[in-house]
Amino acid sequence: MIRVGYPSAIAAEFFAGFPREVEMVPLSESLDHDIDIDVWMPDPYPARSLRIAPHLRGLKLVLSLMAGTEWIPGAVGTDVTICNARGAHSVSTAEWTLTAILASLKSFPFYNGVQQAGEWKRRFEMPERYARISGDARPLYPPVMLEELTGKRVLLVGHGSIGQQIERLLAPFDVQLTRVARTARTAPRVHPVSELDGLLPDAEIVILILPLTPDSHHLIGPAQFELMRQGALLVNAARGAIVDTDALVTALHAGHIRAALDVTDPEPLPPGHQLWSCPNVLITPHIAGSTPQFAPRAVQTALDELKRYLAGKPLHNVVRPGV
Amino acid sequence: MIRVGYPSAIAAEFFAGFPREVEMVPLSESLDHDIDIDVWMPDPYPARSLRIAPHLRGLKLVLSLMAGTEWIPGAVGTDVTICNARGAHSVSTAEWTLTAILASLKSFPFYNGVQQAGEWKRRFEMPERYARISGDARPLYPPVMLEELTGKRVLLVGHGSIGQQIERLLAPFDVQLTRVARTARTAPRVHPVSELDGLLPDAEIVILILPLTPDSHHLIGPAQFELMRQGALLVNAARGAIVDTDALVTALHAGHIRAALDVTDPEPLPPGHQLWSCPNVLITPHIAGSTPQFAPRAVQTALDELKRYLAGKPLHNVVRPGV
Repeated sequence: MIRVGYPSAIAAEFFAGFPREVEMVPLSESLDHDIDIDVWMPDPYPARSLRIAPHLRGLKLVLSLMAGTEWIPGAVGTDVTICNARGAHSVSTAEWTLTAILASLKSFPFYNGVQQAGEWKRRFEMPERYARISGDARPLYPPVMLEELTGKRVLLVGHGSIGQQIERLLAPFDVQLTRVARTARTAPRVHPVSELDGLLPDAEIVILILPLTPDSHHLIGPAQFELMRQGALLVNAARGAIVDTDALVTALHAGHIRAALDVTDPEPLPPGHQLWSCPNVLITPHIAGSTPQFAPRAVQTALDELKRYLAGKPLHNVVRPGV
Repeated sequence: MIRVGYPSAIAAEFFAGFPREVEMVPLSESLDHDIDIDVWMPDPYPARSLRIAPHLRGLKLVLSLMAGTEWIPGAVGTDVTICNARGAHSVSTAEWTLTAILASLKSFPFYNGVQQAGEWKRRFEMPERYARISGDARPLYPPVMLEELTGKRVLLVGHGSIGQQIERLLAPFDVQLTRVARTARTAPRVHPVSELDGLLPDAEIVILILPLTPDSHHLIGPAQFELMRQGALLVNAARGAIVDTDALVTALHAGHIRAALDVTDPEPLPPGHQLWSCPNVLITPHIAGSTPQFAPRAVQTALDELKRYLAGKPLHNVVRPGV
């Protein structure tokens, strides 16, 4: 009988739809002995799963419940096939991305400070802030209190399941969208990452939603910040290390760009790290995917893949085949 | 020659497209003598315009640059026709509305506090907060850190130009939308306001975007808050007095509902007012419409109406005909 290990922290009822011919084995992060497992659904928190991995014997297939799997290849044998939960994070992470873009353009962090202070009139600090970060020195009246997303030039770097969902949410805003991904495509047109530097100078908003790989590590570094236009907004919903944190801090302190980040490098961002208090940055602590809908959706994705595995059909979401 | 008064605070260049057969007369808020004006574009700030209004002689038409015109009928003669700038605020206010909904569902004000404190681990306060306001006590894992808009039941109260634009922005979220307006309609179905109380109990999000009139004053009072479901989000992008502030404060302090407000009653909200510090409320100081695109868009709307007026054609945006 096929033995499927799952995180004991996820209530067993979520796995009620799994086939009767598999044996479901709850795995606690405090597992302290070796155990036979054919198929493993790791705990969504890598730190917990890394404690479990060395105890697994006979592992053939990993069905991650997450989109990002960069920690898994180093934790299991090269003969193990690794699948991600493609799509399970698409809705939640795309929603976070749109929220972060809008909250940044609308200066919600600033207005949150106005609310905390209870001083309505502090809104009149906004027009000067806008002029400084945007470089727009026109004598606008009424004074500018926030910005619009509609019509903006958006560079979407990454066009997988989440990237495509972001594109869907952006559609009603009539943005001028340019797509970049590891693999160039047509219909719709997707530029290869090699063209990124040529596309950065025109973008008002740059969204990072591609996997962390050796190629994408520090994809955005000092040279890329230099290329970005005054006041451009960098949004990272992917992995912290795709951005060079030191270069990001420098660009933020120079008042050159803005950023909205759900991921950082290092992570967790330690207390006192200078990124926390840079100007024009909005940080959330890697929470974008953790909605009430996530677990049932991710488990369903894993179940669909498991059924294909049991039936000997081709798997859909292989990120690393076993050799 | 037709004399058109405009706010001197708006740069004359914005009116460059106006017809040569009208005389453009800049009006300062410190105007201290009577002046002949046929058509008046008031300053967007009512307090300034109310100082100017008594000095205008021969006024026939008001072309407001704003959507809301509730202060104008009391400030000009009953023989004066009043038009609003229908559509000029639609994009900006609809964008604010979506931002406020998303920022509330994603607890961005809470995460702003996490960022201010620089304490990544404070995110683990969130699951309990979520359980308390939502009433969702399922043992979810990973712990719930934010909510999704996708699929939510939304009650849109007001279906004019801004309301319709809000509907456009909501479309990719596949919400279950119910529309309410002063006038019932079919295709799409719009319920009359008289049915509001029957629709409130089912709504997860209630959006107010209707004009302030004697009928809509305190439309949302103690009885309506009572009808709203646990954790429902009330969004007011219209006028503060559509909501009974005392009842709102009570409902928020009871932990019964959430709110996101760009408008309040009173306004400006004075320092120390208890609404500032209620739980689960997001307040911005009436800024939703003040984007860089607003002035050119509103002036264009007024210009289009002025051209119809000069040509003797029917006006499009009359909110009160002169008698």
